[in-house]
Amino acid sequence: MKNGKYSISDVAEMLGVSKSTVSRAINGNSGVGEELRKKVLDLVEEIGYKPNTIAQSLSRGHMNIVALILGDIRNPFYADLTFNIQRILNKHGYMVMVFNSEYDVRREIEFLKLTLQFNFAGLILITAQAESVEGMLHSMNIPIVLVNRILPSYEGDSVLTDNFRAGYMAVMHLLELKHKHIGFIKGPGISSASTQRFDGYRQALQNFGLPFNEEYVFASDLKLETGISLAQKFVKELKERPSAMVIVNDMTAVGFMDGCKENGLRIPEDLSIVSFDNVDISAIKGIELTTISQHVDEMSEHTARLMLKQLKNKECKPERVILEPTLVVRNTTSLYEE
Amino acid sequence: MKNGKYSISDVAEMLGVSKSTVSRAINGNSGVGEELRKKVLDLVEEIGYKPNTIAQSLSRGHMNIVALILGDIRNPFYADLTFNIQRILNKHGYMVMVFNSEYDVRREIEFLKLTLQFNFAGLILITAQAESVEGMLHSMNIPIVLVNRILPSYEGDSVLTDNFRAGYMAVMHLLELKHKHIGFIKGPGISSASTQRFDGYRQALQNFGLPFNEEYVFASDLKLETGISLAQKFVKELKERPSAMVIVNDMTAVGFMDGCKENGLRIPEDLSIVSFDNVDISAIKGIELTTISQHVDEMSEHTARLMLKQLKNKECKPERVILEPTLVVRNTTSLYEE
Repeated sequence: MKNGKYSISDVAEMLGVSKSTVSRAINGNSGVGEELRKKVLDLVEEIGYKPNTIAQSLSRGHMNIVALILGDIRNPFYADLTFNIQRILNKHGYMVMVFNSEYDVRREIEFLKLTLQFNFAGLILITAQAESVEGMLHSMNIPIVLVNRILPSYEGDSVLTDNFRAGYMAVMHLLELKHKHIGFIKGPGISSASTQRFDGYRQALQNFGLPFNEEYVFASDLKLETGISLAQKFVKELKERPSAMVIVNDMTAVGFMDGCKENGLRIPEDLSIVSFDNVDISAIKGIELTTISQHVDEMSEHTARLMLKQLKNKECKPERVILEPTLVVRNTTSLYEE
Repeated sequence: MKNGKYSISDVAEMLGVSKSTVSRAINGNSGVGEELRKKVLDLVEEIGYKPNTIAQSLSRGHMNIVALILGDIRNPFYADLTFNIQRILNKHGYMVMVFNSEYDVRREIEFLKLTLQFNFAGLILITAQAESVEGMLHSMNIPIVLVNRILPSYEGDSVLTDNFRAGYMAVMHLLELKHKHIGFIKGPGISSASTQRFDGYRQALQNFGLPFNEEYVFASDLKLETGISLAQKFVKELKERPSAMVIVNDMTAVGFMDGCKENGLRIPEDLSIVSFDNVDISAIKGIELTTISQHVDEMSEHTARLMLKQLKNKECKPERVILEPTLVVRNTTSLYEE
């Protein structure tokens, strides 16, 4: 007896019928009498033959699965976005597979290849690196939505907040509170969201004649632990400190605040902080971050909507949705007093 | 001209060579002269033929992908666990695909089916529901590791903390601080981790002759928002309040504390809180949760190790790793004073 896997040919041969008869019987299609259908199903059951439905889907040319690539599963902003997008796509009959790229471009490219090979229905990119990825996107003939990232010459559907404006707003808020020396903690260099926030910050400094000091610029990988260790550096290594910091995301800010407090700095009395994202935790008493909301709910809804639109009609005109950021003032910023 | 997809047969026919020659040329195997190889590759390039590597992997019977199913991507305990597991498996050449079940058993079963159909190399289940899933696991002939969950008659590899002991420890700590009236916020009923923590709590109450009051028991879906809304109920609807609460996870505890403070309760002066997980955020000043660590790093390492062991040798003896929980005392518990 054959050990393990039977093919549809084996089933057909055992019953002395054609492969297409077996297939029709299994799939419940017409053209097979009840008696024969039962005979086929009984045999299939008995020998444990499993129809290769993936191969079938591949040959039919689609699967109800949308791949979603994000940079770091531990970032609550990404987690919220992913959760919301999945919830909407699920309602419309699509499953979501999540890939965590760790901001590694090679891994991202591997995932893009898998997306093609598996013949997934669509692709949502919450993180996207530089040109190498862009080239692949152009050649992928499936629905794609780019979220929170800009690629230089990508013209398909995308959803983002106006990150330049967000960076600018952060400085404006601090300026109204009379701060003059304002530092910045950037995100990974490959993140366009981070780069644009930084550009907005620089532009605002320039427009209002505030000094820019390279020593006040730090870099984070967006993680809480990194915020803590940057605070050590900030408190111990700077001869003069700025009176305010703009920080690329809430998690880094939460860690940074903690490290500052650990080293005797009071927030906001000694240092004002504005960050970005407005994740759940930023509203909690004892944290109460002044932060710039990216409207994760709206962002998720637009992303899901654009994906569903393309899934329905591949030829539709691409849209770029740009959401306005909103400043949420809580307790980490206060008037600068000399 | 053919529109779209070419098969390897088409390529072979166009060049008047055999399919295996085309295959050898594409895969860089020997037995094909340089000139012919170039001819094949040029044609392949020209017509846009893509070898169906997934179909190849399926027929070879394996793919270097491990599926990982979790309950809620927004829970930082799961996110940390997933991130760490992925990092180790990546080093050994495996990719990880993440599925977010939203604790929905139907979705979990869909994911299990996909895992089989896609012929993934292995499966890590960070959440697993009741019997319906258990039946499927028994019939899946691939490496499986069950994490942080117990299924009644599942005997394969699994990694968990001793959750009964964790629940017991929480009560012991509160008892040492002279608390007598201790409530509990449970997790979803389908979570064995939650159920066992609750059982440990009840056993400790019983062993030390403390009263159990059904009114002091609440249920959470493990989310921060839910903690906030439970606090409203706790403060406004209870005639008499317990002096301490044991809370199924840190995120619910963070929300619950926030809601309590919002309603004028001081933590720990008016209410002591012990939770479970010890996620990053629980150590932050202003939160400083007394919590029971599940040792997420060790948990991830054991999970990855067991998966790799099975991937190497399917027939190895199953292991059940049970980690000892550790109490981390911070600032949400204090001596009960009448």
